[in-house]
Amino acid sequence: MTQMWWRDACQPLDTAAMDQARARQQQLTKPAGSLGQLEGLAIHLAGMQGRERPGVDKVAISIFAGDHGVVEEGISAYPQAVTGQMLRNFVGGGAAISVLARQLDARLEVVDLGTIDSSLELPGVHHLRLGAGTANFARQPAMTDTQLAAALQAGRDSALRAVEDGAQLFIGGEMGIGNTTAAAALASTLLSCPARELSGPGTGLDSAGVRHKAEVIEAALVLHGLRADQPLQALACVGGFEIAALAGADQPLQALACVGGFEIAALAGAYLACAQHGVAVLVDGFICSVAALVAVRLNPQCRPWLLFAHQGAEPGHKALLAALQAEPLLALGLRLGEGSGAALAVPLLRLACALHGQMATFAEAAVADRPA
Amino acid sequence: MTQMWWRDACQPLDTAAMDQARARQQQLTKPAGSLGQLEGLAIHLAGMQGRERPGVDKVAISIFAGDHGVVEEGISAYPQAVTGQMLRNFVGGGAAISVLARQLDARLEVVDLGTIDSSLELPGVHHLRLGAGTANFARQPAMTDTQLAAALQAGRDSALRAVEDGAQLFIGGEMGIGNTTAAAALASTLLSCPARELSGPGTGLDSAGVRHKAEVIEAALVLHGLRADQPLQALACVGGFEIAALAGADQPLQALACVGGFEIAALAGAYLACAQHGVAVLVDGFICSVAALVAVRLNPQCRPWLLFAHQGAEPGHKALLAALQAEPLLALGLRLGEGSGAALAVPLLRLACALHGQMATFAEAAVADRPA
Repeated sequence: MTQMWWRDACQPLDTAAMDQARARQQQLTKPAGSLGQLEGLAIHLAGMQGRERPGVDKVAISIFAGDHGVVEEGISAYPQAVTGQMLRNFVGGGAAISVLARQLDARLEVVDLGTIDSSLELPGVHHLRLGAGTANFARQPAMTDTQLAAALQAGRDSALRAVEDGAQLFIGGEMGIGNTTAAAALASTLLSCPARELSGPGTGLDSAGVRHKAEVIEAALVLHGLRADQPLQALACVGGFEIAALAGADQPLQALACVGGFEIAALAGAYLACAQHGVAVLVDGFICSVAALVAVRLNPQCRPWLLFAHQGAEPGHKALLAALQAEPLLALGLRLGEGSGAALAVPLLRLACALHGQMATFAEAAVADRPA
Repeated sequence: MTQMWWRDACQPLDTAAMDQARARQQQLTKPAGSLGQLEGLAIHLAGMQGRERPGVDKVAISIFAGDHGVVEEGISAYPQAVTGQMLRNFVGGGAAISVLARQLDARLEVVDLGTIDSSLELPGVHHLRLGAGTANFARQPAMTDTQLAAALQAGRDSALRAVEDGAQLFIGGEMGIGNTTAAAALASTLLSCPARELSGPGTGLDSAGVRHKAEVIEAALVLHGLRADQPLQALACVGGFEIAALAGADQPLQALACVGGFEIAALAGAYLACAQHGVAVLVDGFICSVAALVAVRLNPQCRPWLLFAHQGAEPGHKALLAALQAEPLLALGLRLGEGSGAALAVPLLRLACALHGQMATFAEAAVADRPA
């Protein structure tokens, strides 16, 4: 790939605005620190938006959908046809994310990167058709370099549309039967953790199904040469991702091409472009967090632009969040995807901003702060 | 006390509506269970509202304020004058809960049960003036039986106003410098746990302050005869509150009178009245959870009407929630009180209802459910 736009610099946070916001927080009529995570969130958003009192009125949600050839291996509880059917449901207004986008007054766009039904034509969906789903990565690389570049660019294009619309927050969602398998495979190689520790039931596998899924992943990682340096990298499983990062900047791209998915690559591309253009990202669940890990590996400067919405039910999510040093806002046992967990956290961001911007200071309200 | 209204029957949940809601959840276009806690929440609300598709549009918030004589013992980081000053801030619109009530379009009422400034007269505040704060419970009972009955009734009156307004959700909040000490004392006797395990920094004590607070509480519990049967009841600390409950139905009232607070009694009264009149309650943080424990001890039938908003930063809150078998929605490190944590969780209830009510079913959206 010649045009490696994802390595371009990301925007810095505005530290002056963060200092102003931090000083303001100390003056609001409440014990210092008593709003917990919401205080740091408001300060963080101030740094992203370059103003003392940030807001999150305009939210852009992009759902990236793609099918996965690895479903052939029997790793999903649902048939592949559901991916396309759910695309119809997204634009029809009946999916969870459709309901949430309406409630939040957020813009929702749906991007079809490639499903098994290549003739699918739905009004309101961006059909990009990079392929009839990925190839079965148990046998061959999931995608070509050309497909990978197009998927990354598709995510970037969504982010640029959000920038153009003046979005203050970008949420990426995903739909793709089989994509917890691709995500677990990516996490497994990037974190150098055994697949069994990162594989979960997805949409509803039983325990035998989960074991099979982990075996399919392990075999695929060996097939694609993504299990090199096992003894060395095993350390990284505990110690964070610093050691694995030594494997080189190309590793995430190689992993994406071999065992990733179109929608995961698009999410990573979108996150990177948001960071390059100064738009806050609210990362959804397991699959989106894997995309976030890929993005951070490709360009660590993007990390400050990523907020994490929730810790989901998929067992590997906790390890991922720890590796990303993320402090998610919610832990409701969600495992739906579609960006739904991120959408559910949007009111917390909005209320954090409202509290930060509208509460009276001790001086304004003539309330005694504690004796110095 | 002659008129023990709190023992009157609470409304039963509508199990038929819950069955309908449960069946509906199974048909919505998502993997079963994938919305985690929000699914059970929608079903629970269906049972409370007696309809398959509940809603939480109308929210009533009542803030109960009172001063605490035990502040004389040096157990708070802030002076008592702050309680009255914050009352002004609540109705002035600058407090956290004022901002949140506006954002949520919730009705906010403020009830002054008795502060040290007995001449305080603020437009929009219900001044009940049960006393110039409670008495210092390190030396004498915090309140008389008459004050206790009036405080319970004040909470009930707030709940009845919420019922009259057609509220679908009641949130009680509290303000009272020193009230984490009263709350920890109540929890300590009702759960038969050592005060040091339930005492925390409140608005900002250092570790020496927290130790002192626990010592003041332990001494007071002995003074008031609330540490009887120590060896037996110590079991309850681990095993839940069943054993301590054997101590009899009057124990919570005796504890409230001896070491409680006006606002804590009012909260308990409000919760009980809500349950008797079929209005869902969203319980806020540590102090409100203690009030909830008192309410459940006085009349266990009220328990199904209590939803728990969050696990706060005060160390004793976790033990309380466990004793109440509560599954809080948020854990953001909040420790502000005022009902703010409950207000922050309202959007989750509303979105849970929107998802439950508006998502398409598999049949409506022509999406394949998994093979049987």
